[in-house]
Amino acid sequence: MKQLWLFNQINSDLHRVEKELYNFIKPDFPVLEDSAVQLLEAGGKRLRPAFTLLAGKFYNYPIDKLLPVAMALELIHMATLVHDDVVDDSTTRRGRPTVKAKWGNIVSIATGDYLLAKALELLAQINHPEVSQILAEVSIEMSQGEIQQIKASYDVRQSLKQYYYRVKRKTALLISASCKLGALVSSAPRREVWALGAYGHSLGMAFQIVDDILDVTAEASQLGKPVGGDIRQGIMTLPMIIALRESKEAARLEELLIKSEKTESEVSEAIRLIKESGAIDESMRFVDLYIHKAKAYLQELPNVPTRKALVDLAQFIKERKF
Amino acid sequence: MKQLWLFNQINSDLHRVEKELYNFIKPDFPVLEDSAVQLLEAGGKRLRPAFTLLAGKFYNYPIDKLLPVAMALELIHMATLVHDDVVDDSTTRRGRPTVKAKWGNIVSIATGDYLLAKALELLAQINHPEVSQILAEVSIEMSQGEIQQIKASYDVRQSLKQYYYRVKRKTALLISASCKLGALVSSAPRREVWALGAYGHSLGMAFQIVDDILDVTAEASQLGKPVGGDIRQGIMTLPMIIALRESKEAARLEELLIKSEKTESEVSEAIRLIKESGAIDESMRFVDLYIHKAKAYLQELPNVPTRKALVDLAQFIKERKF
Repeated sequence: MKQLWLFNQINSDLHRVEKELYNFIKPDFPVLEDSAVQLLEAGGKRLRPAFTLLAGKFYNYPIDKLLPVAMALELIHMATLVHDDVVDDSTTRRGRPTVKAKWGNIVSIATGDYLLAKALELLAQINHPEVSQILAEVSIEMSQGEIQQIKASYDVRQSLKQYYYRVKRKTALLISASCKLGALVSSAPRREVWALGAYGHSLGMAFQIVDDILDVTAEASQLGKPVGGDIRQGIMTLPMIIALRESKEAARLEELLIKSEKTESEVSEAIRLIKESGAIDESMRFVDLYIHKAKAYLQELPNVPTRKALVDLAQFIKERKF
Repeated sequence: MKQLWLFNQINSDLHRVEKELYNFIKPDFPVLEDSAVQLLEAGGKRLRPAFTLLAGKFYNYPIDKLLPVAMALELIHMATLVHDDVVDDSTTRRGRPTVKAKWGNIVSIATGDYLLAKALELLAQINHPEVSQILAEVSIEMSQGEIQQIKASYDVRQSLKQYYYRVKRKTALLISASCKLGALVSSAPRREVWALGAYGHSLGMAFQIVDDILDVTAEASQLGKPVGGDIRQGIMTLPMIIALRESKEAARLEELLIKSEKTESEVSEAIRLIKESGAIDESMRFVDLYIHKAKAYLQELPNVPTRKALVDLAQFIKERKF
């Protein structure tokens, strides 16, 4: 697990989430063990559990209620990752081979189904219909996002609206739910449950746009996966959509992006054209906008130290390099 | 929907399940609509909803509680079918092209995830922790069964125990849950909830063994899919496991079954060898045993007309040709 200094407040409980997740998914499956544990050990920032715990910090922090919700969120997230790796045909994630690369599509599908079933088991224990309802709605939207991503791939004519539709479903909704549910199970006032959800939504949008920017600008070693993955897979991201409008060599960029098989030098050329078009700066302005909105929603919340942590977290999302 | 005369008692409510499922999965997804509706319209016997409704008939038949449970069960079943089609690489089911064949793996994965999320939405509405708990456990076991099926494919040395492990997870557990949950939400006495679950379990085992027999003995037109599908996919079924022990030409059969690519004449030859070995009759004896057990569990239940219907249903499972 990559530890963020921003999570100091909840560090020990985040480790507890990690440990309990490990125990929860490990014992009862002889055959899925390897794949599920590999996925868990591959780590990640545990952003969703962190948001749930941080949201709880605004209130009486009922850790016994927060913990299973945080775990369920991470399980759903892991399930989408392992199914997405089949969809995206990804071979590495966070610097390690994906489940798909190691065991193939079939194990990936079963592993995702297993993790979803384990999330359902937690939800049955949590026994809070509104929590289940919110996660059901998010899961429904996420599966729609999966499909739309495929339908819109290699589509160089797509609108910003289509991009937002997808990013909302791919990332923002689950991060929003993570914040919202932390408040909900802490019996926060309705208005504040809403405000934390809105904060998470804006932050999630910013997070995904930064992800899409990093796919063009980062180093593979920082990213834990090859740079240009979106370009290779035909996933049209904000930098590409903007570059296709702004670049002086838009026709050439289009020609490159619609190719279903691209050579390494074609990927590099596309990256160069996107960078030269000014699309990165322009995309960052969208990030700024969402970060600004996220921070504004925080004003609706009690002025406790956690609020400052969430402001810093928003800033970190913007500046992150991995 | 293929209507069974055995379901006369619950016919109109089974149609209601059908209609409500249609409305439930249809409206809120612009992109998944085709695949999910195709899957629903492909029909099937709606065995799981039927069992839930029939179990309720022993008691006060609280249709408003039974209906969402029946729908959730069918959604989970549909989700496993669409994910299994990716795993099994199936191109037709119930006489129609599979979602996988028509739209590919990616849409199949997303459609399955969507249906599971819709099931979760129903469970949130049902708001009965034990119902969620039981379905979570079944889903966990089912995902383990998926994996085991792959691990054991083309393995001609596998034991009957491995076969039972798989059939339980592939079929019996969900049918058992269908019966059990119908009783549970009808506030049946614990002992009768258990007895209906045990009935469903035995019946489910019998059902799957019959399925495995039909894959060898049926006509493709009756089956709605090509005969010998299991043989082609390397799925070792009871008739094969028995034939590998009993056949005078066991070595040749083994040679055929372990081939990862089989010609049509090789599939036909394997079918002939299995039939000639006496494995079909022997497999039917296992079916008889389960049907016998299923009927015995019914003795624990009130002697109402529905009990007779469940006896007849057990008999039908044995004699069915599709």
